[in-house]
Amino acid sequence: MGNKKQPYPESHIYRVRHSAAHIMAQAVQEMFPGEAKLAIGPPIEDGFYYDFDLPRTLTPDDLEKIEKRMREIIEGDHPFEKTVVSADEAREVFADQPYKLELIKGLEEGAVDENGEPIDEPPEISIYEDDTFTDLCRGPHVESTAEVNPDAVKLMSVAGAYWRGDEHNPMLQRIYGTAWESASELEEYLDRLEQARQRDHRKLGKELGLFHFSEDVGPGIPLFTPKGEMVRHLMEKFVRDVQTRRGYEHVWTAHLVKEDLYKLSGHYDNYRDVMFPPMVDENIVYRLKPMNCPSHMTLYKEMGLHSYRELPLRFSEFATLYRYEKTGELTGLARVRALTQDDCHIFCTPDQIQSEFALALEVIQEVLDWYKFSDYRVQLSLRGEEGKYVKDDEKWDRAESALRDALVASGLAFDEVEGEAAFYGPKADFMAKDVLGREWQLSTIQVDFIQPARLGLTYIGEDGEEHVPVVLHRAVTGTTERFMAVLIEHFAGAFPVWLSPIQVEMIPIADRHLSYAQDVADKLRAEGFRVQVNDRSERMNAKIRDAQNQKIPYMLIVGDREAEAGEVSVRLRTEEDMGAMPLAAFVAQAQEAVRLGD
Amino acid sequence: MGNKKQPYPESHIYRVRHSAAHIMAQAVQEMFPGEAKLAIGPPIEDGFYYDFDLPRTLTPDDLEKIEKRMREIIEGDHPFEKTVVSADEAREVFADQPYKLELIKGLEEGAVDENGEPIDEPPEISIYEDDTFTDLCRGPHVESTAEVNPDAVKLMSVAGAYWRGDEHNPMLQRIYGTAWESASELEEYLDRLEQARQRDHRKLGKELGLFHFSEDVGPGIPLFTPKGEMVRHLMEKFVRDVQTRRGYEHVWTAHLVKEDLYKLSGHYDNYRDVMFPPMVDENIVYRLKPMNCPSHMTLYKEMGLHSYRELPLRFSEFATLYRYEKTGELTGLARVRALTQDDCHIFCTPDQIQSEFALALEVIQEVLDWYKFSDYRVQLSLRGEEGKYVKDDEKWDRAESALRDALVASGLAFDEVEGEAAFYGPKADFMAKDVLGREWQLSTIQVDFIQPARLGLTYIGEDGEEHVPVVLHRAVTGTTERFMAVLIEHFAGAFPVWLSPIQVEMIPIADRHLSYAQDVADKLRAEGFRVQVNDRSERMNAKIRDAQNQKIPYMLIVGDREAEAGEVSVRLRTEEDMGAMPLAAFVAQAQEAVRLGD
Repeated sequence: MGNKKQPYPESHIYRVRHSAAHIMAQAVQEMFPGEAKLAIGPPIEDGFYYDFDLPRTLTPDDLEKIEKRMREIIEGDHPFEKTVVSADEAREVFADQPYKLELIKGLEEGAVDENGEPIDEPPEISIYEDDTFTDLCRGPHVESTAEVNPDAVKLMSVAGAYWRGDEHNPMLQRIYGTAWESASELEEYLDRLEQARQRDHRKLGKELGLFHFSEDVGPGIPLFTPKGEMVRHLMEKFVRDVQTRRGYEHVWTAHLVKEDLYKLSGHYDNYRDVMFPPMVDENIVYRLKPMNCPSHMTLYKEMGLHSYRELPLRFSEFATLYRYEKTGELTGLARVRALTQDDCHIFCTPDQIQSEFALALEVIQEVLDWYKFSDYRVQLSLRGEEGKYVKDDEKWDRAESALRDALVASGLAFDEVEGEAAFYGPKADFMAKDVLGREWQLSTIQVDFIQPARLGLTYIGEDGEEHVPVVLHRAVTGTTERFMAVLIEHFAGAFPVWLSPIQVEMIPIADRHLSYAQDVADKLRAEGFRVQVNDRSERMNAKIRDAQNQKIPYMLIVGDREAEAGEVSVRLRTEEDMGAMPLAAFVAQAQEAVRLGD
Repeated sequence: MGNKKQPYPESHIYRVRHSAAHIMAQAVQEMFPGEAKLAIGPPIEDGFYYDFDLPRTLTPDDLEKIEKRMREIIEGDHPFEKTVVSADEAREVFADQPYKLELIKGLEEGAVDENGEPIDEPPEISIYEDDTFTDLCRGPHVESTAEVNPDAVKLMSVAGAYWRGDEHNPMLQRIYGTAWESASELEEYLDRLEQARQRDHRKLGKELGLFHFSEDVGPGIPLFTPKGEMVRHLMEKFVRDVQTRRGYEHVWTAHLVKEDLYKLSGHYDNYRDVMFPPMVDENIVYRLKPMNCPSHMTLYKEMGLHSYRELPLRFSEFATLYRYEKTGELTGLARVRALTQDDCHIFCTPDQIQSEFALALEVIQEVLDWYKFSDYRVQLSLRGEEGKYVKDDEKWDRAESALRDALVASGLAFDEVEGEAAFYGPKADFMAKDVLGREWQLSTIQVDFIQPARLGLTYIGEDGEEHVPVVLHRAVTGTTERFMAVLIEHFAGAFPVWLSPIQVEMIPIADRHLSYAQDVADKLRAEGFRVQVNDRSERMNAKIRDAQNQKIPYMLIVGDREAEAGEVSVRLRTEEDMGAMPLAAFVAQAQEAVRLGD
């Protein structure tokens, strides 16, 4: 799990990784002389891979041997040499490499680059040689194999991968490796990886009993258990409360619309691939909503004539949207087919763009701060030179300045990127770093000049004339499901007290303390806490271990002494023992933790 | 709007209404001699109708004339006489009445009764005569036309109706009439009708700006405005809170499943007609959920092995279900295609049926009481003699006694009805009367012996063996949408304070009082009230009238005096003037109303 980002091709580490892929391919080729068919081997985020067609399946032992041989090649200090060739020359070089021949054909026709990715112009064809290895390759590479640090390279795993990602093609073996500048960087990376594995929301989701997927229901459709539902309920309630406090309103618009509405809005043309299959009843076709905008805009219209006095109208909805993501791309809660956006559409006059954008910034800042995402950056995406942008210089200039001015006033650091705006207007995206330093795109605010007009929205201005409102699209945490995945990993499953599905575990030392434990539980429930009583006949330590594994913030251990004194012995999931205290003192402490979002 | 119920055919009022239909048909026939083609004319709830094929469209004047002529026929004291005839004889009598001839053919073939309704056995064919009128009719009728009270009959309206309800058939003219025993009964009925018209949730929904339907989205799919969403949010929050307090948990299971799951559960065979069209992707077919049971049961299974110690598990969900009701049957919010059930599935051991049923009764009673539905009855539906019931005498006897015992212990009055149980187990339904005396089926609790086994649910019992859990299906208010329709009509739009989307309207007397009004509004919002400030430059009385029409519980009028004294002048939507009081006093009073559910 992680947002894909890749170093620039010009960077040294990119060239190191690319070269490591070649070095690995040479080692593999030597292991299966004349039998290894090579496909492609690009650098990727944190490393590289290479796909091979081999006479047998690779074993972990093989990886060790390949890695050993790679170190020898590295130490051989073989220079990388590039030669530009004609297609015919290339065909001669790779005469016994069918995948390369297919790539050469593609290169010749100008359809793909040497990694099989589609491109616009027929590229130059080049080969790179080092030691005994020759590859069809655009480069760039390091000067010599010795530039790859042998203590900073590691092969990670083997996985199956279809040639060109198409399941109708042969299945190849893909070896993943990682490469860094220094051994300490490699160590840090492996450490991060292990931490991420420990925090993987799919693993923790199972251990904490938060959600399941079922073949009977369908891929990418999560089912939330009582605990998981409580977390999502609290997440949505929190954002709803913030929104309500700041003058946002909520609407409800169901989960489907007639397909014709999406033809009108333009989503049918641009978004059809990601929609669930149509529901067809003779002449009427329905579609599950992949987004809310056309529904919210239709509600705006149905409400009748609007006056400028009513604006801004801020329609928020926690609506579950359905997007038919490819099954291969589904990843736990991070990528699902049923996604609940904390969506809002703000209908306003052009004059209100800046103040509404500023208000949306406030909401986003408040929410991200509450979730302890202190490290985030804002990207302001502006219009570029190219033609996809709606031509209306005055509108663009005005909206772009409004956003820029609001960002400056907010004191938030932001980067401006030209040519990254949506075709319908400028936007601001929030990228937040989690505790592992991974960056997540969460919040977004987008200005829309286009859809309101396409759907025929109007308001009567102060001048008595009809105008088309501007719409701001806005999401705070993005979607409940994906953000829950981020939170699980961010907190390693130890949710803040307010968000923990079970906040207090009552642990009676012996069965005779059960009634006191129940009594305390009832009192805590009356104070609004979510309490569970462990009434099983197990040893106290087993109960404590169990509650710790469940990441329950507070364990209240009660025995004779506590029952007599009306006290509770408080233990934290961090293993800290707070000792015995009156129940009221615990309540005050826990309430403070809830209040602070700890 | 109203649940259909029809007096027994044996009752006198049934015969009166049936006879009034004949009397009306005679009058219409006389108005168009030789040209009126008669279709069918049954008694219905509160009255009767008759469908005619006429040379021209009827006018209100016509209805008056027909009504006048009906009184003459009534006063003529013509006896009703029945003759049993053969099909051939009947054909002779109705030689120039094509619809009757079609009915006779159906009667002869045993397919339909004389009202075109399908039946099992070929019936006796009979005709009824009074005065100059002859109809194909099974009866029964009153002795003589004079038995119909001329002061208790009234023609209500004319509407179009397809012959046999099929849009491919000719459109007929249907005259609706009402008939009662006495003039005072008629008056009361018309009064109720006027009240119901005033309270019609479709009319009030528009006036109060709660919801809309849009052709662009689809029939039966409501769109809730911010005000309407607030009402549904509060309704669902209330039930959720009650459920949580009583140990129910909530789950989340999305809005669709693979169709195969419904084949396994049996819903595909029994419920397909009411499902939205399938979403087909090559081999996989998805369906929008028309109910939650299979999804909740799948979640139960996915959670892994269950022990009897975990039971009961109570999975509640406010899930929007989709049912493809016929467009002709859609009625505002009372009958929609997108319905949000306050659904719960309780997984328990057979021993727990009684206690779980009792707990469900408590939840239902608490909720109905809170909504001021004090007048309700419970119907306990038991197994009948016929074959549709799952054969397992021991299970049935045990479950039926458990339900009966729990009902007796609850002190609720209940009727037992044999043969009304679902095929999978006994059930209890709650019928609540609204202020107009109309009865609504709201809550239901159903025992299910069947589905858990079909879907392969198990738990490990105290004996260490696998058992199949019993499931109770339970709904409290039924669906949010329909119950909102009921509430709108029950309260005539004047929701209790806690449920009012806007609770307080600030009315500054002049523009210079606006800042004080805003100040008070902010203080009230901090106390959790939903407040609106009327800042328009209108006269105070216009503002008051507007707030009253919006059924806002409290209007706070503020001018110089109030601003100086830190007071507010309180006016209720009932037009009661509470005078000026300190803000704190108003807050206390309004909080008390919220607490009491007033």
